[in-house]
Amino acid sequence: MKNDAYQAIKKITIVGGTHGNEYLGPYFIRKAEQTERYRDNAIEVATLLANPEAFAQGQRFIHHDLNRSFTPDILVGSQPQHEHQQAREISRHFSREALDQHFIIDLHSTTSNMGITLIVRNDSPLNLHAAAYVQQNIPEARILFSDVDSTKAQSLNSLSRFGLAIEVGPIANGVVRHDLFETTERVVDLVVKFLTLGKTREVPRLPDEVTVFKIRERVPYPRDSEGELRAMVHKDLQDRDYRLLEAGHPAFRTFQGGDIRYDGEPGYPVFINEAAYYREDTAFIMTDKVDISLKQP
Amino acid sequence: MKNDAYQAIKKITIVGGTHGNEYLGPYFIRKAEQTERYRDNAIEVATLLANPEAFAQGQRFIHHDLNRSFTPDILVGSQPQHEHQQAREISRHFSREALDQHFIIDLHSTTSNMGITLIVRNDSPLNLHAAAYVQQNIPEARILFSDVDSTKAQSLNSLSRFGLAIEVGPIANGVVRHDLFETTERVVDLVVKFLTLGKTREVPRLPDEVTVFKIRERVPYPRDSEGELRAMVHKDLQDRDYRLLEAGHPAFRTFQGGDIRYDGEPGYPVFINEAAYYREDTAFIMTDKVDISLKQP
Repeated sequence: MKNDAYQAIKKITIVGGTHGNEYLGPYFIRKAEQTERYRDNAIEVATLLANPEAFAQGQRFIHHDLNRSFTPDILVGSQPQHEHQQAREISRHFSREALDQHFIIDLHSTTSNMGITLIVRNDSPLNLHAAAYVQQNIPEARILFSDVDSTKAQSLNSLSRFGLAIEVGPIANGVVRHDLFETTERVVDLVVKFLTLGKTREVPRLPDEVTVFKIRERVPYPRDSEGELRAMVHKDLQDRDYRLLEAGHPAFRTFQGGDIRYDGEPGYPVFINEAAYYREDTAFIMTDKVDISLKQP
Repeated sequence: MKNDAYQAIKKITIVGGTHGNEYLGPYFIRKAEQTERYRDNAIEVATLLANPEAFAQGQRFIHHDLNRSFTPDILVGSQPQHEHQQAREISRHFSREALDQHFIIDLHSTTSNMGITLIVRNDSPLNLHAAAYVQQNIPEARILFSDVDSTKAQSLNSLSRFGLAIEVGPIANGVVRHDLFETTERVVDLVVKFLTLGKTREVPRLPDEVTVFKIRERVPYPRDSEGELRAMVHKDLQDRDYRLLEAGHPAFRTFQGGDIRYDGEPGYPVFINEAAYYREDTAFIMTDKVDISLKQP
């Protein structure tokens, strides 16, 4: 079973610019194409600029968030909005390539202090194995585990059972940082190497278990009766992604000058003060730290 | 002469949201209004949200950069674009208030690692004095000195002889950071205090001279024949705002993998890798470090 999945992978596609204002991905792709970075790799490696129009405008999206547009009703629909059309086009692009033979690496960046994060869905062990291999080589990389149900299969990655998303940060939108560009290259190279070894030689030996951060819930901003922000992320929480947050710790500072303390179950917040999440009313996403066995049953 | 200027100041206006994706200003204004922060100040303090439409959309601007729109031809023209109309409206707003009695504090933020920067034009000693007073109280604050000519009198601040712009960073666009929000409050309070003391009691004793960074030139990105970025800011230059850059130091890393070294006159770069300046083709702005006497001639 395990080796079957590895053997099935016939192609890797590296996707950038799913969000047009996250510049690392598009420039990664341009560089990979110009330098033929993966030309001689034993598994074919392709690249895809997912939303060239949004990238050209330096916007996350034109009409809708492309990475929330891969839902069944959009994919079979005929909505004229740019990202809905784009989602259908990308879906057709991948369908032609036999999706179950396809591993998608989607490149993202975040304004949050999340370092290197590998976002993995729980529907295929192969995805977690690839992330574990990256972590074996880059110990500070963290694995963020999302249920298929919780993400409602709306992301570009959801087109295939196989894939992961890479989030690096902190980085402002609309800029390329050389250091995080190199980080992204390092992570992508490791994923490509792992899949290639798994198919052509043997699956690298992985640890018996990995620690993952499992998405629990989104925590909204405090707002007034008119829906306006009533508080900002507290400076004692800012930049503390992946660090334990317990009840009583300051979470927000109101514009009146008071502190709002966290009063939920302890957990590990991520995407703290991510720019794109103001519009999704998410101040941070709470996760649970969980050890998962990688041993075959 | 000196005291005349201080006596002339009848009103201070704090402006936020000149760039709609720099969130510190708009939220500063909202808080100042809600808490009546400057209600009892001896000089009247007003606030102005400069581009509410751009702020609502989380964009720097709708059609044009508002802070490049205060030119004579736009101010007397009838261009229908949003920011050109907005520039005329703001100009009329200030004209009603007798501009030479008016001090404008314009709140900005930058994705560059510029800490606290006070941008001061060289057309009135009062502006430099206010900045020097802030620096006396916050030694890490830096003064960026721009010629009236070099800025072509196009900024919102250019509406009055009296004023300065506050830049804090690094901060991603589209977010409020509590720490930099407090920094902004501290700086604004000091400017208000200085002007108020100067008018109602006596001008605080200032140092005999201050060090300023004088804008020399904009340094563009390396581009290919089609105008596409050929390189990114080098990681050895990134975040080194206000630190000496000399010929031979790596300035860019090309997407082919090579280094491009700085080959100009030594100087102190600022706005390194500022997101908004990609579209103005400015990788950084070179400055000269100069000591300026504050003594009266």
